[in-house]
Order: sequence, then C-alpha cells, then structure tokens
Amino acid sequence: MDKILDYRSDTVTQATPAMRQAMMQAEVGDDILGEDPTVKRLESVGAAMFGKQAGLFVISGTMANQVAVMALTQRGDEVLVGEESHIYNLEVGGLAALSGVQARTLRATEGRFDVRSVKAAIRPSGIQTAVTRLLCLENTYDLNRGIPLPPEYMEQMCELAHEAGLTVYLDGARVFNAAAVLGVDSRTLCAPVDAMQVCLSKGLAAPVGSLLLGSTEFITKARWIRQRLGGGMRQAGHMAAAGLVAMETMTERLVEDHENARMLAEGLAAIDERLVDLTIPMTNVVQIEFGPLGLCSEEVVSRLLNRGVKVKPIGPTACRMITHWGISKQDIEETLAIMQEMLTS
Amino acid sequence: MDKILDYRSDTVTQATPAMRQAMMQAEVGDDILGEDPTVKRLESVGAAMFGKQAGLFVISGTMANQVAVMALTQRGDEVLVGEESHIYNLEVGGLAALSGVQARTLRATEGRFDVRSVKAAIRPSGIQTAVTRLLCLENTYDLNRGIPLPPEYMEQMCELAHEAGLTVYLDGARVFNAAAVLGVDSRTLCAPVDAMQVCLSKGLAAPVGSLLLGSTEFITKARWIRQRLGGGMRQAGHMAAAGLVAMETMTERLVEDHENARMLAEGLAAIDERLVDLTIPMTNVVQIEFGPLGLCSEEVVSRLLNRGVKVKPIGPTACRMITHWGISKQDIEETLAIMQEMLTS
Amino acid sequence: MDKILDYRSDTVTQATPAMRQAMMQAEVGDDILGEDPTVKRLESVGAAMFGKQAGLFVISGTMANQVAVMALTQRGDEVLVGEESHIYNLEVGGLAALSGVQARTLRATEGRFDVRSVKAAIRPSGIQTAVTRLLCLENTYDLNRGIPLPPEYMEQMCELAHEAGLTVYLDGARVFNAAAVLGVDSRTLCAPVDAMQVCLSKGLAAPVGSLLLGSTEFITKARWIRQRLGGGMRQAGHMAAAGLVAMETMTERLVEDHENARMLAEGLAAIDERLVDLTIPMTNVVQIEFGPLGLCSEEVVSRLLNRGVKVKPIGPTACRMITHWGISKQDIEETLAIMQEMLTS
Amino acid sequence: MDKILDYRSDTVTQATPAMRQAMMQAEVGDDILGEDPTVKRLESVGAAMFGKQAGLFVISGTMANQVAVMALTQRGDEVLVGEESHIYNLEVGGLAALSGVQARTLRATEGRFDVRSVKAAIRPSGIQTAVTRLLCLENTYDLNRGIPLPPEYMEQMCELAHEAGLTVYLDGARVFNAAAVLGVDSRTLCAPVDAMQVCLSKGLAAPVGSLLLGSTEFITKARWIRQRLGGGMRQAGHMAAAGLVAMETMTERLVEDHENARMLAEGLAAIDERLVDLTIPMTNVVQIEFGPLGLCSEEVVSRLLNRGVKVKPIGPTACRMITHWGISKQDIEETLAIMQEMLTS
Repeated sequence: MDKILDYRSDTVTQATPAMRQAMMQAEVGDDILGEDPTVKRLESVGAAMFGKQAGLFVISGTMANQVAVMALTQRGDEVLVGEESHIYNLEVGGLAALSGVQARTLRATEGRFDVRSVKAAIRPSGIQTAVTRLLCLENTYDLNRGIPLPPEYMEQMCELAHEAGLTVYLDGARVFNAAAVLGVDSRTLCAPVDAMQVCLSKGLAAPVGSLLLGSTEFITKARWIRQRLGGGMRQAGHMAAAGLVAMETMTERLVEDHENARMLAEGLAAIDERLVDLTIPMTNVVQIEFGPLGLCSEEVVSRLLNRGVKVKPIGPTACRMITHWGISKQDIEETLAIMQEMLTS
Repeated sequence: MDKILDYRSDTVTQATPAMRQAMMQAEVGDDILGEDPTVKRLESVGAAMFGKQAGLFVISGTMANQVAVMALTQRGDEVLVGEESHIYNLEVGGLAALSGVQARTLRATEGRFDVRSVKAAIRPSGIQTAVTRLLCLENTYDLNRGIPLPPEYMEQMCELAHEAGLTVYLDGARVFNAAAVLGVDSRTLCAPVDAMQVCLSKGLAAPVGSLLLGSTEFITKARWIRQRLGGGMRQAGHMAAAGLVAMETMTERLVEDHENARMLAEGLAAIDERLVDLTIPMTNVVQIEFGPLGLCSEEVVSRLLNRGVKVKPIGPTACRMITHWGISKQDIEETLAIMQEMLTS
Repeated sequence: MDKILDYRSDTVTQATPAMRQAMMQAEVGDDILGEDPTVKRLESVGAAMFGKQAGLFVISGTMANQVAVMALTQRGDEVLVGEESHIYNLEVGGLAALSGVQARTLRATEGRFDVRSVKAAIRPSGIQTAVTRLLCLENTYDLNRGIPLPPEYMEQMCELAHEAGLTVYLDGARVFNAAAVLGVDSRTLCAPVDAMQVCLSKGLAAPVGSLLLGSTEFITKARWIRQRLGGGMRQAGHMAAAGLVAMETMTERLVEDHENARMLAEGLAAIDERLVDLTIPMTNVVQIEFGPLGLCSEEVVSRLLNRGVKVKPIGPTACRMITHWGISKQDIEETLAIMQEMLTS
Repeated sequence: MDKILDYRSDTVTQATPAMRQAMMQAEVGDDILGEDPTVKRLESVGAAMFGKQAGLFVISGTMANQVAVMALTQRGDEVLVGEESHIYNLEVGGLAALSGVQARTLRATEGRFDVRSVKAAIRPSGIQTAVTRLLCLENTYDLNRGIPLPPEYMEQMCELAHEAGLTVYLDGARVFNAAAVLGVDSRTLCAPVDAMQVCLSKGLAAPVGSLLLGSTEFITKARWIRQRLGGGMRQAGHMAAAGLVAMETMTERLVEDHENARMLAEGLAAIDERLVDLTIPMTNVVQIEFGPLGLCSEEVVSRLLNRGVKVKPIGPTACRMITHWGISKQDIEETLAIMQEMLTS
C-alpha cells in the first residue's frame, strides 16, 4: 500500500485546489493598517454566520484562545476550564504565562460539567481569593474524544455563568462538527456565549487560521492584543481567501467525516467490543483502548505505521483516530481490514 | 461571659510577654544591607533546626510561598499543588499573577496524593505542553483539616518527584504541628524536600513572619526576589527577635493545642457523632459538619458569637475550629457546654 | 574613634526608645482580618495628615510603589518615570516583572521634568502602541541628590498628566524632607497627586514601613494586591505603633538633618569647591565629586572607613552622604575634620 | 492621476506574480508536527544565508522580536534598546507584557549608541537591581530614518556586550537594506550577533513572515515559545513558499529602492534644502521636515493625498516617505513634481 492514511489529527488536512486558487488570486492590502479587503470580508462573513458583532482573523486556534483570555481577564483572575480542554493542556501554559490567570479545572462526564461543581468552583470574594472571571467552554469537547455539546447544555452553562457575573468564552475550534452532528445551526449553538473562536483549518482544511468572534468592543481589544503577540499580519488576504473557501465549501461535508468515524468505530467494535465505547456521543474522533487486548499504544502505533496507517497515541494503551477530508469511506474499509489482521493474527 | 473564645484561626494568636520584651530590646541593623544581627541569628537557627543550608526571614507565609515558586520556576511552567492547598486557594492567584505558572491540582485522600495520579499529572515534554517543574506539598495539609503527613509519605512523594526531575517545595506553615503530633523530629520530617517554609506566627504566636529554608543558592535567589516584591525590610530584627522566642519557647507546647483539639472533637462527637469525623488524623483543627443536624453554618456562627465563641464557616453547613495558645483546657470545657446547650435546646 | 558615623543612607536609622516602648505595648489584632486597632489608627492618621481618603500600611517603600503600580495599571501599559527614580533603578525590575508595564524614562534637570518632554512622552493611541497610563513623581527626587520639588511644580505636572488622562502617583518616601525644607505643609505639597506613599523608616527612623495613601477605591484594591504579594501581616500593630511614634515625633526634627547636610556641604566646599555643587536645592543628601581631586570613590570609601566614617559610592569618582537622626552637629564637625585631613594630606 | 503612490511604508508591498504562483503550488505539511517541507527549506536556506545554525519561520517581525526576547531573558531582566527602536515603540509594550523585562533606552546619534553610554547602562549586580541581560540592536535603525549600521559598529557593540556577559539580538527587519547600501554581505554584517530576525515582507514584498535565526538551542526554545503565543501554524508552507521567492529574487533589487530614495531626497533638497538632511546615511526612508516651511504634517498629508500621494506623518511637522518595489523612478519624478507644485504654490 503506497498511500499513507493519516488519522493522527484533522490538522493534517491540506488545502483544496479551490483554496490554492483563491490564495493565488486574492485581493490584498496591509491588514495591520486595516486595508486588506479579503480579510475584512472573511471577518464579516464569519461574524454574520455566528450572529456576533465582529470578527478577527488570527493565525491559529491557540492564538485565538490566548488573545481572547488576555482580552477578557485581568492578571490574577481565575478561569474555569475543562480538565481535558485544549486551552489547559495543549497551549504551553499560556493562560498563566501570557494572561497571568489561574486555571481552575472542571471534571466533565461525557463532555459535560456538572452544574453543582461549576457553582462550587466560583470563588466567593475575599481578601485572600482570586476573582473567578471566565468560564471557558469547548465544543466539541476533548480533542481525544470530540464530544458534541447540544444547545441546551450550552445555554445552561452560560446562564449559570452569567448569573454569577462570569463571561463565557467558547473554544469552538470544531464547533462546525458539533453543529453538523447535532443537526443544529452553528449560530444557534453559539448564541449564548459572549465570545468564541472557530477554526478554518482542521476539518475545514484551510492551511491556517481561526476566527475570533464577539462584540465590537471585544474584537477591538483583541485586535490590539493580537498585535502585541506579533499576530498582526500584513497581506493576510492570501490566507483569508482560503479561509473563505473553507467556510463556503467545507462545513457541510463534515457529515461525511462523522459517518466515516462512526463506520470506523463500529467496525472496531465488531472486531472486539472492548476497543471502543460506542455509547458516548461522537463526531470525527474515535478513541481506542487496546489495554484489554494486551497491547500498548507504542506497539500499535508502530505496527500500523508499517501498514501505512498513522494513529496518535494518547496514553499507555490508548490511541486516537480522527477522520477528515483526506480519508474516504474506502480508506476506512482498508483500515478496518488492516486492524482486523493486526488484532487477530 | 466576658472573654471571647476565638477559634477562627491560629493566626489570631498574640505575642507572649517574652516576645514583646524581645521586640523592644532587639539588637538591629539594616537588613537589606545584610546588617541585622537578630535576623541573621533567626535565619541560621532556623536553617540548622531543619538541616537546610540557609534561611530567609519573610513577613508572611504567603510571601514565603510566592517567593519560593518565583525562585524555583520559569514563566509558563506547571506546578503540582493540592486541590485544598493554601498556595492554590488563598493566595489571590499569585502563582499565575506573579510567577506566571500554571497550577495543576491533585486530589488528596485524607491529605495524601495518590502516587499514580501524581505520576499521571507530570506532563511528557512536547511542543504544545508546559514543563512540569515543581511539586508543592503542604504539611499539615488543608487549612480546614490540618492533617499531618508522616515522614514515609514525604519521602515517597519526594522520591517520585525527584525521579521525574521535579523540585519539591514544602509549605510547612504548620509543620511543627505535624512533627509534634507524629512524634518525629521536624528536621527528619522535612529532610527530603528541596525547599520549604515554616511559620513563626500561627501556632507559635509570633506577631508576623515565616522562614524560607533551602540551599544557599536558592536562598540567595529568593532574597533578591523578595526585594522585588518589596519584602526586604530595614530593621527587621525587632520582628525576628519575637520569632526567635517563638522557635525557642512555643514549639513544644503545640501538643497542648492538639490535646485540646482532640478533647473538643471528642466532646462534640459525644453530643452527636455526626458532627465530626474522628477517624482522620488531626492536629489543631476540628472540622464540624452541622448539616445532619439541620443547621447552616451562618446560623451556627451567629449563635455561637452571641455566646462569646468565634468559629469560621467553611461551607454552607460546615465550620472550622482551631485551637491555639489563647485557648485553654478550661476554655474547651466551657465551649463544649455552650455547644451542648446550643445543639440540644 | 570608637563610634562609627554611618552616612550611607537614612535607612540605617534605628528606632527611638519611645518607638521600642510602643512596639512592646502595642494593642494588636489580626490585620489580615482587619482587626488590628493600631494599624487602623496609623492608616487613618496618615490619610488625614495628607488629606487622602484612606491608607494602607505596607512593609517597605518598594512594596508601596509596586503595589500602587499594580493597582493603577493594566498589563502592557506604559508608565513615565524619572531616569534617576528609585522605582526604575532600585526595585529589581519590579515594574516589568510584577505589573508587566513598560517604563518610559524622563530626564530631569535639577530634579524637574521639562513640560514639553513629558508631553512628547505620552503616546498617541494606535494599534502598535502601548497606553501611557501613569506618571510617577518622586519627591524628594533622586536618592543620590534628594532634591525637593515645590508645590507649583507638583501642580504643573499633575495638571499636565490629568489633562492627558494619566493618573499621577507620588513616591514620597522622603516627602516629609521636601515639605520641611520648602516650609510647606506636606498635605498641600501632595494635594494634587492621585495616590502616594510616604516612608516611616528612613528619616523618621521607624524600623520598617510605609503608608500608601489615596482614594478608598484605590486602597481597597491595593490591600488585595498587597495580599497577593504576601505583604498582608497578622499582628502588624507592633510595627505600626513605632510608625505612629515616627509620624508624631520625628517629622519636625528633619530640619536638623537638613541643617547638618548644609553644614557638611559648605564645609566640604570650603575644603575644595569642586567637591560639591551648592547651587542645587538640597535636603539631607550631599553628593560629592572626588574626580577633580584625582580620587576614585573606592579609595575614598576605604580611607574614610578606616577613620570610622561610612559613605556610599555612587559612581567611579562620586560618593553620597546622607544625614539623619543618628548624626549630630558635632558628628558633622568631626567628619569635616577627618575629610580635611584626608583630602589635604 | 489614477494610480496611488503609497510611500507610507514598505509594508504595503504586495506579492509578485512568482510569489502568488509559489503559494498556490507549495508542497506543504503540518508544520507544528515538523512536517512542512517548504517551511523547512525556508528555515535552512535562511540560516545558511546568515551563517546561523538554525531558523524559525514566524508570521511577523513583531513576533520574531517578542519570541526572541522571551527566549533570551528571565522575568525582571533589563534589556538595552534604542530610544527609537521598533521593539520599544511599536510593539504594544510587549517587552514588559510578555517577557516581563524592563527596557532601558539608549540614545543614538545618527543611529549609533555611544560606547560609554552603553557601558554606563549595564547595571552592576546588587540586591536592589535588575540583571542587564540583553542588548537589542536594529539595522537599519529607526523606522523613520532607516539608518544602515556598518559591520565595524556591529562588531564593536557585540564585543562590548559580550565582554559584559550580555547576549546580543538584532532586529534585522531591514538588514538586507543595510547590507545592500553598505555593499557588504548580509552574513558578514550579522556575524557577531547571537540571534536575529530578518523580514520577508517589507522591502522583499512577501505577504507575511520573518525568519528568526540563531543557535540550534535558541531556535528550539523559540519554537516552543512561538507555540505558546499561538504562532505555530499548520500548512505554513504556502506562505513560506512566497518567502523563498522573496529571498531568492528580491534582495538584490533593494538597491533600486535606495537609488529612488536618494533621488527623492535630493529632489526635495533642491526644492528647499531645509526639507531633508542629506548628511545622514540612508536606505529607503526619507524623513522630511516641513516646519521651516510653515507647514504642519497633517496639512501635508491631506494635500498630497488629494494628489494621489500617501505619506506618513511622524510628528507635528515631519513626514516619512519609504520607497519600495511598488515605486518606480518615474513615480519619483511625478512625486517630485507634485511636491514642487504643492510647496511653491
């Protein structure tokens, strides 16, 4: 088998021909001077799509998250984040290093925080205590599970937070996946949050970039903070052009990724039901537990690589596989055949 | 009853007559210039007592903790702290605000972290991950429980941390209490940690001050960082003189506080066994749960205050009482009588 | 000669007998709980003396300065400071390390900033520029010169700053010296600033401590930030008691220090007029330039130490001598005799 | 006149057709996983060109500068920067906000720091002083003048800094301009610095991006810090491809920009010799002083805009014009005609 099937992440997706074309032909200007028409179009299209006042194009989801927290907090504040969240685990300690805020982690069950534990995590004011300022949600939640969170849950969390005077920020890197699998409008899903980001790379396959969305005041501040990080770009329109194509052409096809992931998960369960938990809601991520079969993840990764399949180890005996537009139904079939052979030989 | 019995904390203790005398008569100098003989004596006596190379007198336990973390970490590092630790909950978010480090909380069972969960909390190195740099212990653990941690546990944690390349810092604000109740030498108890602090106020009753202890290199850096925080003091010898009296005269009598706390706890259990959990190891703190008796802590605090007894609410239905050198056996008896009357009337 | 005459700084002053007595007898409480009556008295006496709404007792002038800047700025702001100011040069980079603010230095001529250069230093708003937030004054200005700044200058600077939307903070560590030498009320002198500190140690001879003064809102925030730095103290009343004695008994006698400094400066000029510049307004600091006499400061310091006189080198050929309550008129005479002998032999 | 002549900055340059083609055709991969071949090629080509061990592609010059300082300093350090430097004036206070370092500004005469003033700015170590860690050079120096600094000066500064234990970082955003005008190899010019950046946008006309260069150890750390800022990118090869074209095709043509700038400056001097200072070494920047002609910059900007010429105001009566690949010799002639008419009518 010549082709490599890369399931490590949907970040490996590459630009479509239409995106490449758009990059080449983009009308551009100096975006730090506010003069790039393509960036402006992307920002306003994104804001409209999610019903927010304004948008800001940033180079990555991590920058979107970090800029948002810098804009929404004061040094020494406390922010509530999920124990498995990207912002807490995979952003190099940026919350503390850049914003000087203390993360307080919330445990999630099937991706959801318990109302009582969120309430208990909000500190009363006092001379010795930090101010709890921000609730960070993530939808889909947990990069190693990709759990979609429905509108009712989003509303419940936002209501709770707003009542306590907290702002709510959504890391919606994969919120299009959540919307697609839940069959709801992404605008409805994100309506109750104060600020959010959505990624144009990952499942949507643009080379780079995320959109930060929120109130005009928030975006104005975020733009200024982005500049401090060196995230302001000159002729960013080339990249924004690819992002526009991504938003226009790639969101609806995410259902294919979800069908493929479901097909992969069910195929694995058919091989051995201990491999996957089919009861947890899923999108494009399949988490596989090889422990009960007496395999460690290192061995699995290596054996599959020899057969042209890349998966990501996420623990001593667990791996993750993510479907994306570089993976077809036929690829899933081939992969299941390889898995079957590996696990039963 | 005229006298107020103040059980809210051992921080309310006031200087003994000998301390007051010592403050007045202290030989002093400009300590920022390194010329205060009394401060120097306190620092060397403290270091010797705990078998560390050097010591630094600071104005509070919070400053000791924050200076230590600033000295032992780099911006963006991760530090492991107990979920109920003082450094995480009661220092105004200083870990993030001052050191720019991310706290990762560990759950404790009866004051102890599980070895596996500590290991799991140490991040593997990676382009997206912070460096796990420091393990913060606290002994006695949890200000609302005061659980003493024995030498074997301390050794186990330090060994685990050192193997993973972490430094270990001990918030030993009340480590004299731990040593007293465990019947071990405080030097032995603290031997495996790299750096630590011990408080001279609280149970030892000095007006202010803590000692930061560790290697000469660490203390040199800590002294410089203390200055940045404005914690360097001119004629600090007046306060250090009281601290010396505290170390010389007050550590052994802590056993009285523990006897009194035990007497209080058992007396409460005799009133109603649901009030206290006698199975958890204790020092000078009694945690009382009024929920099963249908009382909220607000009401309890108010009713007891009317009878001249101050206790601290630590939850909707829980309170904390701490014994100290301002509370005698007879005070405990009176308090139990008041409690009995309040709870059974 | 047995007695050492220590002119290095007025920070070497030691507590008066009345202060020592006050420390011993102080009525105290837990000040973090807001229950220390002596601290409260000191804070309200200080606030009243300077006509500010509220006060906060802190352990040092450096802490006062750093807490003030943390309370008055946002991360990334710019603050205008004097090129020779204490806050910029002698606080271990705290402005950047703790507040995350960028210092923009102003050059002073005879202690004063030029109006035009202050205006030019205030940045216009822009996507690439920091916000100029704070003007830091210092009176007396320059620890190595001790130049008093008159009320008209203070008013001019504050007016200019306020018009541009800046807050004004005064490092008034030695503002009592300025008031004494200018013959104005310290309240009048400090009236136009928004927030300030004054030191109780230094010329006033209390062992430790400064008072931060300003609006109630500012002090409330400063108290909370002080706690984050570990600057909150338990039974701080012992030190506050000495501070009260300092404010009541030591401010008026500063004129003696100024007379002594003037006597010293004139005596030195009589030995060689190139040694001192008598034209710059002065308080208790004499800056001496040994260069024209072919002497380096290292040699001067060493030779004088052999004769029982301590002075501080502040450059390759310059030294500083500060008068204080440990130095009498007779000491000045003896010192001049020693100088004469050293410089002419 | 239909065409707008935009002299505000060389940041307005737009990608050449070859760059657009390269963006479209780029071979890419996930660069955060280290798998983008085009990025890798750009980084190694850049490192080789400047004789450094390794390179890192970042999205902007500001990010290059800020990441470098974060990698080369500790919180609270002091860095020496030029009073007119970009890193100090136009990066939103990032030095303090992100690195927590204190800027100490050096005055330059014709772009150069005086050796003695640099030496005087390096702090001796002490309990109250920050550590002077880094000297930041900029070549060309001063965005409003574009002064090239020759190899001898670079060597002198680096020698001085290294002797004092400082690291030297070069903001070489326009170092290709300096090399071109000085007629030296850029590798030779940058040889003595420890770390540096060079911009691919600006004069080289790539849409975005800079290269950070230095030791392998430095680049490894910088890559990790870049990720914390969210500056890590997925399929960055599209942009890197344009950067490669920029390095290959655009550096030699910078001499045209310099000839054009010289032509513009001389033409202006011919109109009125008070408009420009022809004695200062220049590259592609012309600084024009309209004050002596009784014009304010606001008026000049507006009048020129009406005639299709954009210039940037940099003070009440001064403007800046920068030449770049969007400006031809003929454009200069037209511009001079417009200027002549405006200034003499």
